[in-house]
Amino acid sequence: MTAAVLIDGISPTDPLHAIAVEDRGLHYGDGVFESALLTRGRVRFLDQHLRRLALGCERLGIVPPDPAVLRSDVQQLSGSAERAVLKIIVTRGIGPRGYRPSSRSKATRVVALYPAPQLPATSGLVLRWCETRVGRNVRLAGIKHLNRLEQVLAQAEWQDDTIAEGLMLDTEGELVSGTASNVFLVRSDALVTPDVRFCGVRGIMRGEVLRVAKELGIAVSEEPLWPHDVEAASEVFITSSVRGVRSVAELGPLRWTDSPVADRLRQALDF
Amino acid sequence: MTAAVLIDGISPTDPLHAIAVEDRGLHYGDGVFESALLTRGRVRFLDQHLRRLALGCERLGIVPPDPAVLRSDVQQLSGSAERAVLKIIVTRGIGPRGYRPSSRSKATRVVALYPAPQLPATSGLVLRWCETRVGRNVRLAGIKHLNRLEQVLAQAEWQDDTIAEGLMLDTEGELVSGTASNVFLVRSDALVTPDVRFCGVRGIMRGEVLRVAKELGIAVSEEPLWPHDVEAASEVFITSSVRGVRSVAELGPLRWTDSPVADRLRQALDF
Repeated sequence: MTAAVLIDGISPTDPLHAIAVEDRGLHYGDGVFESALLTRGRVRFLDQHLRRLALGCERLGIVPPDPAVLRSDVQQLSGSAERAVLKIIVTRGIGPRGYRPSSRSKATRVVALYPAPQLPATSGLVLRWCETRVGRNVRLAGIKHLNRLEQVLAQAEWQDDTIAEGLMLDTEGELVSGTASNVFLVRSDALVTPDVRFCGVRGIMRGEVLRVAKELGIAVSEEPLWPHDVEAASEVFITSSVRGVRSVAELGPLRWTDSPVADRLRQALDF
Repeated sequence: MTAAVLIDGISPTDPLHAIAVEDRGLHYGDGVFESALLTRGRVRFLDQHLRRLALGCERLGIVPPDPAVLRSDVQQLSGSAERAVLKIIVTRGIGPRGYRPSSRSKATRVVALYPAPQLPATSGLVLRWCETRVGRNVRLAGIKHLNRLEQVLAQAEWQDDTIAEGLMLDTEGELVSGTASNVFLVRSDALVTPDVRFCGVRGIMRGEVLRVAKELGIAVSEEPLWPHDVEAASEVFITSSVRGVRSVAELGPLRWTDSPVADRLRQALDF
């Protein structure tokens, strides 16, 4: 299914038999990942993705692969695709049975290309609320770790292809994000987004949007948000490294027709 | 490192290259597992383990492997060991990129034997409190899923081999369990254990202890418990399928010398 894959820098003879039985990524979700867009021969925001990957490893106590080595893997695969999704997984590697990490484990790195999704041009998306909540844990908040059952269960809630994304609340009812995106609201011409202090992922596109908004003179704020903030927003959009900045047109009974802020940001980001 | 392993019923040519790159167990921790004790040619409580595995699959929407097929795998491996830990992993199998589960995925099953840990006879254990908390999520509570970063981080908190286990609280400060065990308190001759309604694993040995205690006429209760309940307990013990019923002698400044209830239960369970 993947176009190409490298495991620890080597193209596996058989992708169906490629990962070690004892890899802690399989046993415990003990690792982190990145999904980036490869377009016109270039991985968008690769520096930022590699920085977050290293930060995630640090938070989990995983000795990360040398970024130069990861760049070399990415370079090797990138030549083969005009437009694709680049996925990087770093696990703690092979270890004995039991949760305790061994200092002797050497991280496993998987770098793979997947087909890029077909996206409608810039029309507003239809979203839904997910029933599955996100558990809080400051130890895991912000990083893109491999414990993703909550997102899996959330996406399993709907099969209707016209719904592009589901918004998730945490177990206390606070707004977190989409299942695979961050969410932004426009409120009195200012931009607000959940602060991911308890859970959720500090998305790369989220970071780029915050950076570019400041450059454009748009006030930004990361803070606790709730469903009523979404209802009161004059504009809602989601962000992801693969899908970019995407305006929301519909969420349950709510409708948004204009997206001037998202349009400006999308243009500024060339995404 | 494993003594023996079967993947989908087949012994891999190379255990270092055995699992598919695109297995959702690796990408999302999308699956469940069991750890059981194999002793004197027999897997203790195998029926219960297979039932919980099936229940976990059901909760996650994974079509579980036929229990007869799993039993056959277990049978095939069991012959080779007198005393070992049997681990079964069932993942949702191979799937395309993205969190949404595909109905076309076929579960992957891994059955492996590991060396059994050396356990001191019946002396009381030294425990500690973990700083890492367990996030709450009713969707995941009770089942033994593969999202185990919290337990990994908790066990990484200490390296001192004299400490046998760490107790974990959830994000609200409620007592959950050990990192790899359930916990029981004795209070006025009755047995109490956390109810795992928000998080934690409904352990097989936990279930057996509750069952046997009732048979022995010991009052049992599953309820919300807090650190002060541990402090007030006349006896504390932990349970696990691999370690059985293990009395706690020491936890921070707390000391327990007698373990009449745990001793009775251990004897009744022949563990």
